[in-house]
Amino acid sequence: MMDSAEVRHYTVGVLVANEPGVLSRVSGLFSRRGFNIESLAVGPTQDRTISRITLVVNGDEAHIEQLVQQLYKLISVQKVQVFSKDSAVERQLVMVKVAANAEQRESIMRLADVFRAKILDVSRSTMILQITGDAEKVSALLELLSDYGVLEMAQTGAIALERGESFMNSELFD
Amino acid sequence: MMDSAEVRHYTVGVLVANEPGVLSRVSGLFSRRGFNIESLAVGPTQDRTISRITLVVNGDEAHIEQLVQQLYKLISVQKVQVFSKDSAVERQLVMVKVAANAEQRESIMRLADVFRAKILDVSRSTMILQITGDAEKVSALLELLSDYGVLEMAQTGAIALERGESFMNSELFD
Repeated sequence: MMDSAEVRHYTVGVLVANEPGVLSRVSGLFSRRGFNIESLAVGPTQDRTISRITLVVNGDEAHIEQLVQQLYKLISVQKVQVFSKDSAVERQLVMVKVAANAEQRESIMRLADVFRAKILDVSRSTMILQITGDAEKVSALLELLSDYGVLEMAQTGAIALERGESFMNSELFD
Repeated sequence: MMDSAEVRHYTVGVLVANEPGVLSRVSGLFSRRGFNIESLAVGPTQDRTISRITLVVNGDEAHIEQLVQQLYKLISVQKVQVFSKDSAVERQLVMVKVAANAEQRESIMRLADVFRAKILDVSRSTMILQITGDAEKVSALLELLSDYGVLEMAQTGAIALERGESFMNSELFD
């Protein structure tokens, strides 16, 4: 559907009024326009009337530009920003339950150390690890853990903030 | 709308087929049934055909039970679990851009130490902090940072995993 030459990940931040239904309107717009949502995060901001949605989608630049225009047509949408890898910090959080008997526990703990992952739970046959980072770091650890057996995982969507002194909502808040 | 005596936070995990539109169908169901979504996280699982959505909503027990039944009627929904605070680990990730001049930088760094927050970016007048934890820890730090001035924040939805040996998707994966 899209020009494969230019398709890449885009991280899009959207400030919306904190109203029922706004999330399904925003995510519905992405899917109607043919974007598969790789990840989505929504949470409060410092102003309780405004929520911040961060989406990671695959697309090309022209499609993304159209999408931004469409987003602004939704009444609840107040600000949209497309983040660039170079000028933004992007992070996600993952929890993984991995199969681990007494012998394997030690080597998983050493892996956790290397990746600065936290161990949140240990049972006789399982461990829960928490890791924070960008997508590459997270998938590197997941790959190593898959040798032990990943029983369950939960991953937040990515969130992003522009580095430096500018901020997305400068005209909305004071 | 709901019996205020019993209204509390519920964390609900939903395993869904990784298909376009599934997110807006699931979030639309919550909003049509009068739930305000406090936070939502969606990300991949170890099986690329299945995504995991975690929602935090306010409601009473009877409403949540109805909701679970309604969720199972959506074709893409494969498994639903309501997590209990006692038996699950729940975490979220927040990034905060805080106003910080040279004099304030030191005291914000000390705060970051106490909360085991990471400093991701420093500019002449701002800092970006990352914090991971449960909702209480996150809001305690945000409260302290608000004295300096929170310029911008992005928050993932909460994710949750059951402690111990059971896992949500035991019958879907092997």
